[in-house]
Amino acid sequence: MTYQPSRRRFVRNLSLGLGGALLSHPLLAACSPREKKLGIALVGLGSYAGGQLAPALQETKNCYLAGIVTGTPAKEKIWADKYNIPQKNIYNYQDFDSIADNPDIDIVYVVLPVFLHKEYTIRAAKAGKHVICEKPMALSVAECDEMISACKQANRLLSIGYRLHFEPFNKEMMRLGQQKVYGPVTAIHSSNGFVYGGTDNSAWRLKKKLAGGGPLMDMGVYVVQGARYVTGEEPLWVKARQEKTRPEFFTEVEETVYWQMAFPGGCIANCKTSYNENASILHADAPKGWFEISPAYGYGGLAGKTSQGPMPFPHITQQAAQMDAFATAVRTSTPSIVPGEEGRKDMKVIEAIYRSLDSGQQEKV
Amino acid sequence: MTYQPSRRRFVRNLSLGLGGALLSHPLLAACSPREKKLGIALVGLGSYAGGQLAPALQETKNCYLAGIVTGTPAKEKIWADKYNIPQKNIYNYQDFDSIADNPDIDIVYVVLPVFLHKEYTIRAAKAGKHVICEKPMALSVAECDEMISACKQANRLLSIGYRLHFEPFNKEMMRLGQQKVYGPVTAIHSSNGFVYGGTDNSAWRLKKKLAGGGPLMDMGVYVVQGARYVTGEEPLWVKARQEKTRPEFFTEVEETVYWQMAFPGGCIANCKTSYNENASILHADAPKGWFEISPAYGYGGLAGKTSQGPMPFPHITQQAAQMDAFATAVRTSTPSIVPGEEGRKDMKVIEAIYRSLDSGQQEKV
Repeated sequence: MTYQPSRRRFVRNLSLGLGGALLSHPLLAACSPREKKLGIALVGLGSYAGGQLAPALQETKNCYLAGIVTGTPAKEKIWADKYNIPQKNIYNYQDFDSIADNPDIDIVYVVLPVFLHKEYTIRAAKAGKHVICEKPMALSVAECDEMISACKQANRLLSIGYRLHFEPFNKEMMRLGQQKVYGPVTAIHSSNGFVYGGTDNSAWRLKKKLAGGGPLMDMGVYVVQGARYVTGEEPLWVKARQEKTRPEFFTEVEETVYWQMAFPGGCIANCKTSYNENASILHADAPKGWFEISPAYGYGGLAGKTSQGPMPFPHITQQAAQMDAFATAVRTSTPSIVPGEEGRKDMKVIEAIYRSLDSGQQEKV
Repeated sequence: MTYQPSRRRFVRNLSLGLGGALLSHPLLAACSPREKKLGIALVGLGSYAGGQLAPALQETKNCYLAGIVTGTPAKEKIWADKYNIPQKNIYNYQDFDSIADNPDIDIVYVVLPVFLHKEYTIRAAKAGKHVICEKPMALSVAECDEMISACKQANRLLSIGYRLHFEPFNKEMMRLGQQKVYGPVTAIHSSNGFVYGGTDNSAWRLKKKLAGGGPLMDMGVYVVQGARYVTGEEPLWVKARQEKTRPEFFTEVEETVYWQMAFPGGCIANCKTSYNENASILHADAPKGWFEISPAYGYGGLAGKTSQGPMPFPHITQQAAQMDAFATAVRTSTPSIVPGEEGRKDMKVIEAIYRSLDSGQQEKV
C-alpha cells in the first residue's frame, strides 16, 4: 500500500501540461489507481480528524492524507511521525494560505469548530484547493451563500461532510422513501442525541458564537438530513419547542429540541435532538409498510429493518467512502454528491427551527 | 477585586521613568497591592493552564492573567470571553515574539510540552519578559544551560513551576529534614505515579522526542525534588531499573522506574515512579523520628504526619502562592526561590537515572 509520490507527480504534471483530455489517455489508464491518489490536507486535528478521518484515509483508494493544518506544535510532530507527513506539507493557521503553492495538496478538509468553517473554506478555495467542509456547514445560510459563491468563483468543488450518503443502511432508507417502495411516506420520526456529561461547559460545542447553537446544530442536522433524504423533499414549515433540565450547564445553547417538519407530499416528521439523551433512530411509515434504521447516524454499528424483515447490508468505513467519492468527483470534474447547496438546505431548515423556538409558532422554511 | 489597568499603567510608567528607587516612594506605598499586579501570559492552553493556572490567577494578589498564547482559534475565543482578555493580548506561536512590544505582559509562563520549553523560554526572554517554565525544565541539562544563559543575557528572571516549594506540608518536610529536627535523615522512600489508562498512546507525554521520557520526566521529577529538598543535598550517585507490563502501549518511554539515590550525608533514597500505579508519598527516617506526607505531590488534599503526630497545615492554592512569589521576586529584582538552576539540578539527576537504566550500573550524578 506504499504511496509513490514521484510517479504520481510525473503523471500529474503530464496531465496538467497537456490538458484534462489526457485523463483518458492510455498512459494514465495503465497506472494503478493508487498512483493517482489525490492529496488531502486536514485542517484542524481534533477528535474527529484524529479518530475518524485520518484512520479512514489509510483505507481510501482515490485520495490519501498528504498534509495537516494545526496551531498546536506538539500535534505537528505527532501527526508527522504517525502518518509520515513531510514538513513542507504541515501548515498552521497563519501560513495556511501558502498552501496555494503546494502541488501535493488537491483537497482541503475543514474539520474546525463551526464558526471557522466559512473562513477556512473560502481561504482554501482562494488557494485553489477543492474543499470538504464538516457539518453543520456554517453558522447561517448567509455564510453558506458566501462559501458556495467563493468556491464557484475559484472554480473549485465544495462538498459537505455528509458521510451517511455513502453508507448502505442510509442509502437504503433513501431508496425505499424516494422510490416509494411502500408507497409515499406519510410519517417519519427521528431522534439523534447523546448525554453531554461532566460539569465543564467551556467546550466550543456549548458556545453559541462558536458552534452556532447546541445539539440542533451538532446532532439535529442529521435528523433534518434524514427526513429530507427519506422523502426526497424540502420541508414547507417547522414548529419547535425546547426543554432544559440543566440550565446552569447549557447557558448559551439549547439542551433538547422537539420539532415537526411538514413536507409537500403530506409527510409529517416528528423530530428530536438532545444533549441529554442517547438516541439514534430514523423511522418511516408508508401505506404498504415501514422501514427504519437504529442506530441510524453513528460512525458504525448501524442496523436496519423494514416491515418485511432485517436489512442485510455490510458495514463500511463511511468517511473513506465519502472522501473517495469526492476525490472521484474532483478527478472527473463532476459536482459532489453532497455539495455546499445540500449543506445550505439544512441550514435553512435549522434557521427556521430556531425562529420557531423564539416565536412559538410555525415558521416557513 | 476589579483590576484597574489605567491606574496601574500610570504607576508603572512613573516608576519606569524615574527609576527603581521610586518603588519605595510613598506614592506607590499608598496604592493598594492589586493596583500593581504584574501581567502574566500563559503560553499553551492545555489542561494544566486551563484547570489549574487560570483559576489560580483569579486568586493571586501580585499578578493576574493578562494574556494568552495559543495556536487554537477556538481557545482564543473561549479564553477571551471567560477571562476578559483583550484581543491585543492574544498571541499565537507565529506572532509570539511581538509580545516584546506589549507592556501589559511582564511574565511569560511556558506551559507547553517539554520539547518546546527551551524554545519558548528563550523567545520570551529575548522579548524582554521574565519567565516561568513548567517542570520538567527541558529535555536535557544542555537545554537547561541554554535557557539559564538566555535569561541571564536578557537580564530576566527564570523560574521553574515547582509549586510545592510554596506548599505548607512540603515546606515542613524541608524544615524537618534540612534542620535535622529528628537528626540527620538516614533513609527516604518516595513514589509518585498514576495509572495511564486507555489504549490511545498518541499523547505527547508518551513520545520520547516530545516529553523527553515517560513517568520519570513527568512524575519522577517530584521524587527527585522531594529527596533533594528533604536532605538539602545533591545526590552523589543513582542506580535504577525498570519494569514494563504493557510494552505495546509504552513503546517509546518507560512505564515504571525504581531507583536509589545516595546523598553525601549518608541518606539513601529508595524511589519509584510509574504510569502504572497511583502513588504519592514522601517518607523520611531519622534517628529521633520519622516524618512523611501522603498524598505528597498533588495539587490539593495533601496530608502529613510525623512520629509525634499529624501535621496541622492549611490547604492553599499552590499555583497562586508560586506565581505570587515570583511576581514579588520580579518586582524586587531578587532571584526566584525555584530558579532555572533548580530545574537543571533535577535534570542532572534524571539524566543519570536514564544512564543507569541503560548501563545497569551505579551512575554518578
